Amino acid sequence: MDSNQCYTRLSKNIERNKKMVTTYYQNKKIAITGGLGFLGSNLAIELVRLRAKVTVIDPMIPLYGGNLYNIKEIKDKIDIHYNDIRDEKAMKKLVKGQEVIFHIGNQTSHIDSMTDPLYDVDINCRGNLIFLEACRDVNPDAKIVYAGSRAQYGKVESIPVSEEAPIHPVDIYGANKHVGELYHQIYHKVYGLRTTTLRLTNTYGPRHQMKHSKYGIQNWIIRLALDNEEIPIYGDGSQLRDYNYVDDVTDAFLRVGCQQETDGETYNLGSGEPVSFREMVECVAKIAGSGKIVFLPWPAERKRIEIGHYIADYQKIQNKIGWNPCVHFEDGLKRTIAYYREHRNYYW
Amino acid sequence: MDSNQCYTRLSKNIERNKKMVTTYYQNKKIAITGGLGFLGSNLAIELVRLRAKVTVIDPMIPLYGGNLYNIKEIKDKIDIHYNDIRDEKAMKKLVKGQEVIFHIGNQTSHIDSMTDPLYDVDINCRGNLIFLEACRDVNPDAKIVYAGSRAQYGKVESIPVSEEAPIHPVDIYGANKHVGELYHQIYHKVYGLRTTTLRLTNTYGPRHQMKHSKYGIQNWIIRLALDNEEIPIYGDGSQLRDYNYVDDVTDAFLRVGCQQETDGETYNLGSGEPVSFREMVECVAKIAGSGKIVFLPWPAERKRIEIGHYIADYQKIQNKIGWNPCVHFEDGLKRTIAYYREHRNYYW
Repeated sequence: MDSNQCYTRLSKNIERNKKMVTTYYQNKKIAITGGLGFLGSNLAIELVRLRAKVTVIDPMIPLYGGNLYNIKEIKDKIDIHYNDIRDEKAMKKLVKGQEVIFHIGNQTSHIDSMTDPLYDVDINCRGNLIFLEACRDVNPDAKIVYAGSRAQYGKVESIPVSEEAPIHPVDIYGANKHVGELYHQIYHKVYGLRTTTLRLTNTYGPRHQMKHSKYGIQNWIIRLALDNEEIPIYGDGSQLRDYNYVDDVTDAFLRVGCQQETDGETYNLGSGEPVSFREMVECVAKIAGSGKIVFLPWPAERKRIEIGHYIADYQKIQNKIGWNPCVHFEDGLKRTIAYYREHRNYYW
Repeated sequence: MDSNQCYTRLSKNIERNKKMVTTYYQNKKIAITGGLGFLGSNLAIELVRLRAKVTVIDPMIPLYGGNLYNIKEIKDKIDIHYNDIRDEKAMKKLVKGQEVIFHIGNQTSHIDSMTDPLYDVDINCRGNLIFLEACRDVNPDAKIVYAGSRAQYGKVESIPVSEEAPIHPVDIYGANKHVGELYHQIYHKVYGLRTTTLRLTNTYGPRHQMKHSKYGIQNWIIRLALDNEEIPIYGDGSQLRDYNYVDDVTDAFLRVGCQQETDGETYNLGSGEPVSFREMVECVAKIAGSGKIVFLPWPAERKRIEIGHYIADYQKIQNKIGWNPCVHFEDGLKRTIAYYREHRNYYW
C-alpha cells in the first residue's frame, strides 16, 4: 500500500470515526491518567478537539514522560491535577463523575523494572489496584481503557501474535503490566466495571520523552539522529518490531472508549508493516539526514530482556470495531522528526 | 482403582522416592517459608524424617495457618525463625546457604484478596519479589520450589486443565499467585535462579488451620462435621473439584526439589479422581458420623468468585518425574478426621 492509499484509508477512518467519536465525546467528562505524558497528552489534544471536558492526572515523576509543553496548546481548556495513581484520596476525588477514563499512567521502563522491581510493583500493581478500587467505590459505571503492552507476551513462540498467545514476559515490567490487565478483567467480571485493555506495541511520535533511552527506543533514535550522534545497533538489528504512530493509537483508545461492546475485552494493536530494528534506524537517519549508525555487541542487561521478533495480530480489534493503523512508518517518522526539529528545546 | 491397589502404588512410589529423595535431602540445608503452616509443617516433618537440616520461616500472622503445634514432634530438630518474606534483611540472612527453599509463605485467602487487595499485593507481589531478590543476591544457586495455585486458571473453559490452559483468574489472589509464578520464571530466565512452580489444587489433611473457612474449605467442612454443626452446600454442590491429600503434595515438592530437570518448569498437581463438592461433604459426614448437611443459596461474595468445575491434567509432572497422587480421597479423609479427633484442642 502506498502513501496515497494509506491517507485515503486514513481519511475514511477519520470520517467513520468522526461520526462515532464526535457525537460521543462532545461535552463528555473524560479523565486521563498519565495525561501529561506521550500517549496521554496526544489523547488529551484530540479530546479537546472533539470538545470533551478533559481532566488530566499526572504526578510528573522526574524522568517519566510528563511534560507541560506537551499540552501547551490546550492548557487553558483542560483541568490538570498533579496526582499519583497511588494516592487513594486523590483518585477517589478525580475519577468521580468521569464518563470515560483512559488509564495510561504507569511505570514504563523495562530496565528500571529489573533494577528496582519493588518500585514497579508499587506503581503497576499497588497503584493499578488503588485506581480500580477508587473507580469501584465512586464511579462503577465509567468506561475504563487500560494501556497494556506487548511486553506481556515476552519472547514469543510464533508470529504474528494474537491475544490468545502464551504470556511469558521476560521482565518485571511485562509481568506487572499483565497482572494489571488481570486486575482490570477481574473488576469487570466481579464488579461489572467497564474495563478494556489495549496491548500496545512500540509507539512513537510527537510528545514522547526524549531525555533517556529507558523506554520509547525509536524516539531516542530520533534524538540521536537529530543530534548527529552515533546510533548504536546491538547485534545485527534484524529483530522485527511493530511500530505504531501515536495518532493511530489514540484513535484506538477513542474508538474503544465509546463502544460498550468492548467492555471486558483485550485487544492487540499493531501496524501491519513490521520493520527490523536496523531498517527503523536507517529510515530515521535517512529522513533526518544525520546520525552515524554503529554496530555494537548487546549490553548484558539489555540482551537478557531482549525478546526477538514481535509482530502483532490485530484482527480482533479490526473485526470488532473497525480500527486500522493508517499512518505508514515513513510518514509517521517524517511527522515525528519535523515535530522535534521545531520543538527540540522543550524535550532535551 | 481400589484402596489396596492405591496403597500398592503408594508403596512403589515411596520406594522409588526413597532412593532419590533420601540420598538427596540427607544432611542438606533446607528452608521452608510458611513453614509453620499446613503444607510447610507437613513438609518439615517429612524432611526431618529424611534427616535434612531444616529451617522454617513463618511470621505467624494471626488467622493464617501458622501453628506451633504442627511441628511439636520435630521442634527440637529444626530452626524456627518468625520472619516475614517482606523483611528484606531477614530474608537475606535466612536464605543464605540453603540448598533447597520451599517457598510456600503467601497470603492464601480468596475472599480476603477481594476485601483487602492491597494487602494481598503487599505479600504476594512485593513479598515474593523481596524473597526472590534475596535469593538472587545471596544464594543464586539454591533450588526454589514455589507453591502456585489452581486459582491462577480461574473459571476454566474445558476440563481437565493442563498447564497450557488460559489464565483467567477470578480474584486478586489468583492474579497475584500467577504474577508470583511469572516472577519466578523471570528470575530463572534472566538470572538463572533454579525455580519451579507447582500449581496446587485443593489440598487437605492434618495440620491445616481450622479457625475459619476463608481457605481450605474441605478442612472447614471436617470441623463442622466433628462439631456436629450444620454443613452448608451452596447451590446444588455439583461443582467438581480435585482434592489432593497433603502427603501427596509434600511428595511432589520433595521430588521436584531434588531434580534439576524441573528448573524453570511449572507443573499442575491433581488427584485423578474428581469429586463433587456435594460428594465431598457427604463423604466427610459419613466418615465423621456427624454433621447436618443443609442446602443454601450462594452468598454473593462467594458466588462471584466461584469457578465451576476444576479437574487438573497432571500428566506433565507424571511423565517428567514420575509423581503420582497415591492417597484415595476416602482414605485421606479418614486419616484427616482421625488426626483432628485426637488433636482438635490445638486447632479450634
